[in-house]
Amino acid sequence: MKNTFGESVAVTLFGESHGEAIGAVIDGLAPGIPVDEDFIRAQLTLRRPRGPVSTARQESDPFRIVSGCFGGYTTGTPLTILIPNGDTKSKDYSKTKDLARPGHADLTAQMKYHGFQDYRGGGHFSGRITAALVAAGAVAITALKQKGVVLRSHIRACAGVEDRPFAAEEAALRADLAVLEGQSFPVLEPVAAAAMEQAILAAREDRDSVGGILETAVCGLPAGVGEPWFDTVEGVLAHALFSIPAVKGVEFGSGFALAGMRGSRANDPFRVEEGRFVTATNHNGGVNGGITNGMPVVFRTAVKPTPSIFQTQDTVDFVRGENAPLTLEGRHDPAIVHRAAVVADSVTALALCDLLALRFGTDWLAEQKKGG
Amino acid sequence: MKNTFGESVAVTLFGESHGEAIGAVIDGLAPGIPVDEDFIRAQLTLRRPRGPVSTARQESDPFRIVSGCFGGYTTGTPLTILIPNGDTKSKDYSKTKDLARPGHADLTAQMKYHGFQDYRGGGHFSGRITAALVAAGAVAITALKQKGVVLRSHIRACAGVEDRPFAAEEAALRADLAVLEGQSFPVLEPVAAAAMEQAILAAREDRDSVGGILETAVCGLPAGVGEPWFDTVEGVLAHALFSIPAVKGVEFGSGFALAGMRGSRANDPFRVEEGRFVTATNHNGGVNGGITNGMPVVFRTAVKPTPSIFQTQDTVDFVRGENAPLTLEGRHDPAIVHRAAVVADSVTALALCDLLALRFGTDWLAEQKKGG
Amino acid sequence: MKNTFGESVAVTLFGESHGEAIGAVIDGLAPGIPVDEDFIRAQLTLRRPRGPVSTARQESDPFRIVSGCFGGYTTGTPLTILIPNGDTKSKDYSKTKDLARPGHADLTAQMKYHGFQDYRGGGHFSGRITAALVAAGAVAITALKQKGVVLRSHIRACAGVEDRPFAAEEAALRADLAVLEGQSFPVLEPVAAAAMEQAILAAREDRDSVGGILETAVCGLPAGVGEPWFDTVEGVLAHALFSIPAVKGVEFGSGFALAGMRGSRANDPFRVEEGRFVTATNHNGGVNGGITNGMPVVFRTAVKPTPSIFQTQDTVDFVRGENAPLTLEGRHDPAIVHRAAVVADSVTALALCDLLALRFGTDWLAEQKKGG
Amino acid sequence: MKNTFGESVAVTLFGESHGEAIGAVIDGLAPGIPVDEDFIRAQLTLRRPRGPVSTARQESDPFRIVSGCFGGYTTGTPLTILIPNGDTKSKDYSKTKDLARPGHADLTAQMKYHGFQDYRGGGHFSGRITAALVAAGAVAITALKQKGVVLRSHIRACAGVEDRPFAAEEAALRADLAVLEGQSFPVLEPVAAAAMEQAILAAREDRDSVGGILETAVCGLPAGVGEPWFDTVEGVLAHALFSIPAVKGVEFGSGFALAGMRGSRANDPFRVEEGRFVTATNHNGGVNGGITNGMPVVFRTAVKPTPSIFQTQDTVDFVRGENAPLTLEGRHDPAIVHRAAVVADSVTALALCDLLALRFGTDWLAEQKKGG
Repeated sequence: MKNTFGESVAVTLFGESHGEAIGAVIDGLAPGIPVDEDFIRAQLTLRRPRGPVSTARQESDPFRIVSGCFGGYTTGTPLTILIPNGDTKSKDYSKTKDLARPGHADLTAQMKYHGFQDYRGGGHFSGRITAALVAAGAVAITALKQKGVVLRSHIRACAGVEDRPFAAEEAALRADLAVLEGQSFPVLEPVAAAAMEQAILAAREDRDSVGGILETAVCGLPAGVGEPWFDTVEGVLAHALFSIPAVKGVEFGSGFALAGMRGSRANDPFRVEEGRFVTATNHNGGVNGGITNGMPVVFRTAVKPTPSIFQTQDTVDFVRGENAPLTLEGRHDPAIVHRAAVVADSVTALALCDLLALRFGTDWLAEQKKGG
Repeated sequence: MKNTFGESVAVTLFGESHGEAIGAVIDGLAPGIPVDEDFIRAQLTLRRPRGPVSTARQESDPFRIVSGCFGGYTTGTPLTILIPNGDTKSKDYSKTKDLARPGHADLTAQMKYHGFQDYRGGGHFSGRITAALVAAGAVAITALKQKGVVLRSHIRACAGVEDRPFAAEEAALRADLAVLEGQSFPVLEPVAAAAMEQAILAAREDRDSVGGILETAVCGLPAGVGEPWFDTVEGVLAHALFSIPAVKGVEFGSGFALAGMRGSRANDPFRVEEGRFVTATNHNGGVNGGITNGMPVVFRTAVKPTPSIFQTQDTVDFVRGENAPLTLEGRHDPAIVHRAAVVADSVTALALCDLLALRFGTDWLAEQKKGG
Repeated sequence: MKNTFGESVAVTLFGESHGEAIGAVIDGLAPGIPVDEDFIRAQLTLRRPRGPVSTARQESDPFRIVSGCFGGYTTGTPLTILIPNGDTKSKDYSKTKDLARPGHADLTAQMKYHGFQDYRGGGHFSGRITAALVAAGAVAITALKQKGVVLRSHIRACAGVEDRPFAAEEAALRADLAVLEGQSFPVLEPVAAAAMEQAILAAREDRDSVGGILETAVCGLPAGVGEPWFDTVEGVLAHALFSIPAVKGVEFGSGFALAGMRGSRANDPFRVEEGRFVTATNHNGGVNGGITNGMPVVFRTAVKPTPSIFQTQDTVDFVRGENAPLTLEGRHDPAIVHRAAVVADSVTALALCDLLALRFGTDWLAEQKKGG
Repeated sequence: MKNTFGESVAVTLFGESHGEAIGAVIDGLAPGIPVDEDFIRAQLTLRRPRGPVSTARQESDPFRIVSGCFGGYTTGTPLTILIPNGDTKSKDYSKTKDLARPGHADLTAQMKYHGFQDYRGGGHFSGRITAALVAAGAVAITALKQKGVVLRSHIRACAGVEDRPFAAEEAALRADLAVLEGQSFPVLEPVAAAAMEQAILAAREDRDSVGGILETAVCGLPAGVGEPWFDTVEGVLAHALFSIPAVKGVEFGSGFALAGMRGSRANDPFRVEEGRFVTATNHNGGVNGGITNGMPVVFRTAVKPTPSIFQTQDTVDFVRGENAPLTLEGRHDPAIVHRAAVVADSVTALALCDLLALRFGTDWLAEQKKGG
């Protein structure tokens, strides 16, 4: 379904980096969810470049909700958020438009769109499109929060520096999530943040870039959500997460580390705690057999280094069919993993709204009613 | 869409471990693909338990193609493969049916199906259902092979023992794939296989189990397949792969290792080689911006240790709402990663057939025509 | 999505007229719906040819539920019904296999499947496949009945003879539906039935066939189901109904007759009746703006005359690309409209289960729970 | 999937009558289709109210293409058309907002959206939303035209006055389609147009409204498009057509009239004509077994009378739960069937683009390539 994701709650994404506007349509959200424009703005701010570790381009993301919102609440009909493209000084892209930037989608775009793609600034492949995802995701995050579902990501690793993992115990994990609120460089240990920023700046000086790992936790999901085959919670979330540009890996619970464990350790034993079934450990990341078990859903996402670097690279001119060197100019991020955190939260929230609405019906996300 | 996956080529999975039959329907496959029953049988054999490292249960998978095949070729209408459940000696499951096996889906099944699930042998969550996936996948693999697309998985790691990674260079990689053909314990280095089997047996003696990592490579995919958002090649494949029971992580190209690289290394430089665009390295696993670039698509899948172990485990009786110890009996695999290899190949092939048919039309997978 | 229909509750259809078996998989049905095999059998009997107005071929439809049912209830996992093809005496179809029967799908099958289609007895296009739809639909009808939703079709017209329309008033309509129960030639006025049968036999004597119109009513649907655009109740039902072979028209409420009315008559005025909103008339067939209003959903379906007739017809040999006369032999129905009635009920029930599950969640169709 | 329709080529619709903007996103269209803004404008003009038979409200539909178009061609990425809502003088809707207009969706909106719906001017249910469909459809119509597929609708009947049906013979039918080009009140016989307009004005004087029937023809579709079950050409088109507000019936070929024919007449005999398979008659409307046979696809759509009339009507206050009289004020159309013609063309074109792209691949609609 390409640029639309979801069945009961679906998001459609559109726009090019240097077109008139980017945006998103969310369809199927329950009526009566508060639309908090300040929160949308705050989330967009988290995605924006910041300080020395990011590009100098001052992106401002003034958005407009052009449908699906009335009197401050979702109407239940498609909610469209539009973000006009402001600061797109038309540098002349035509000179390098046939040179494939390594690690980018320029060549594959050519293979798919045969020269009709909008090549300016990455076009529809630009990371800028994620601003629309973040705006849409903000509404989904608000909907989930109302129902007691909270989620947030931190930078588990960046440029070889590690933050501590999320707390295993749920109350401590919820405290971790609270700490991350509003952090534009979300880490749990301040010392890790400092070391990461250092490493990012070092890469920048080398005209290079770095990657990282995001860790996301979702608390408060009801048990019994997801499907045994194909539409497993893991499968649906991974499908959504791999949409984030630069994401190359997704793992749930202990993920790849499970491959080296024995069953006696990896099996999370169940027990009854205050009338609720819980697990003693959470190596399975809150999902058994594709279905939530009521424990926190925890996963990690690998983000490759920003492909835009300022060293001269070998590449091809895909129109002439010749080798050609490429030296990028302009403003680029030496790291994007911190900006990707809010994008991960956003697609996670959108995918979860879909799974929850499929399971419990389209009204579930906002049960209050007005009028008759 | 739950138990159906795919849009243009879709597979629907059904069955319970101890019901009358399991099976799969593949819809949308091009007419004229040869249906090679011997190859299906051979693939099913790869999935079956083998030797001392697997359960003693002698699964035989006599399948029947009950629709969609005529005169040895696909008709283009839904192809249904039925695998009757033979050896299901009705041990009395009712005694332990309310005890949630740790690491299994018993508790989540209860949360979703409210006691109506078929609890015998894991029911619809049983690994046995993957036999239907393998049979369906065999037809997809044949279709791809005809079009020059070959794929295969090896055990990259098991119980802490590593096999060497796939060769980076494409010709060498194709040689690796050829070596794996027909291997029921698919590894590239025989010495690794021996060490892995040793480690599996050690775990078995401890009444325990082990996990592993599969590495899969696909050669010959045309460039330009996949979508920039949501239906990225990575997202679609990961969605399908997370359906395989016990899979908890998927990474493409250098995956999580990319997080620690710099862009100058991670960016695979392009060059022209014999009139074709190739990359010098393949850290991106053949996919840029969600779309194939013509290089081999390479990914790894984390398989957790078999949750069935023979040590006494803490768990709950989910009907009584009480803690209860559980000691499993019967025949179980101390490792399933080797059996999961052919399942990974199968879901990969099915998902790729869908992506290719969407891109190039429903006839693409078999262009020959008969009659008028 | 081809042979799969539905999003939350989906049915997948497979099989060829002379293959090993036909069948259906229903996915997404709530757990805990009673599976009444006698009712399935009775519904299949309604679809079978009967008496002089139908073909002499004795179809018996012994079905087997091979998955998704445990202890007499749906498990919530895919329910598969298999109907083996018994009485398929292999007459030699090869002689006429390249001659396109007028009104049939032989030529279009060739255009789509390039000669690989199973041509025997219509293959996947055979009306016989509807047996699988009827079996699946029987489970859906049971689910709906439990929730107070009842539905049934009668032959509104056949061979130019009309039955009276359904009663406009809901209590009288429910009485009409009760009268139709178990009728294999479902009409409201016995005299109409006799005249229709007469007309069918007259056509048969002329080696010809007749068509008809079905009228279906659904009582008890909750208000608020359906979507304003695209997934309107009318759109979803029509999509499903046009799958029934020979259906060439669908109209809701007063349908085409509305085109000649004025708004003052066509607008169904609302009023409050015993605390419930009702309409004085039901020209809109229970649907306003694509969404149920709580009144009976009423629609009519046009069924063209059986294309198999015994007069010599002009046609083509599509392999030789030549004109050729065709004289059919064998057993065929001079009318199928009476047999199509239960098929219309079946696809209606399946589509409604999907709409209801999407609206109210996957548990809605069977809220009872067992165990914990 | 609610407000999104289509699988390979999908359209998403958004907006409310008095919100900031309405719009549509088309995803999956081939790159390289010319985007002709003048043609879009012309199509929008056809949808606009005209002369005395329509409302006096001067709708102007200045649209903006904000994504998916570059250098005058589709890019292959989502094409978004935005139509700001200009002339929405905020009359005070709050006075009557709880009164359900008979024949409208006010009551069903309340049942679905619980009071959060935007009630102003019909909100998301407003016929105004079809402007976005028409703009999107214009691009699809251009794409089809390039590939030799032409389509157009005329008013087959309005207020009891009939236009002659489309010519049966294909060359004559193509001439009919040419005659209709650019007609804002599309009829084949001028005398019929005059009589229809007369009848509309008579209804208007009675403060009443009228309905009609549209007949649509599509020439040039390749044979072999569509699916045998569920995604039949008829089912997919009907699904889309029932989205048009006020549509209550759809019939293909001779439709409901087939019910009264015998098979010997209804079966369209095949013959070879200039190396192509054609049918002597076209009672099946170009579709056999759900799949195109290469003949024109012809269908009729029933449009109920505009529900907005100026007589006092009985209805309910759905918040107070009481009966209440309603007298509408403002500007409304006594007929909309002529304006619905271009909407029918638009949804038909969009649905056909989807079916064609699924069948022949995503490049099919525009095979030219630029660059490498």
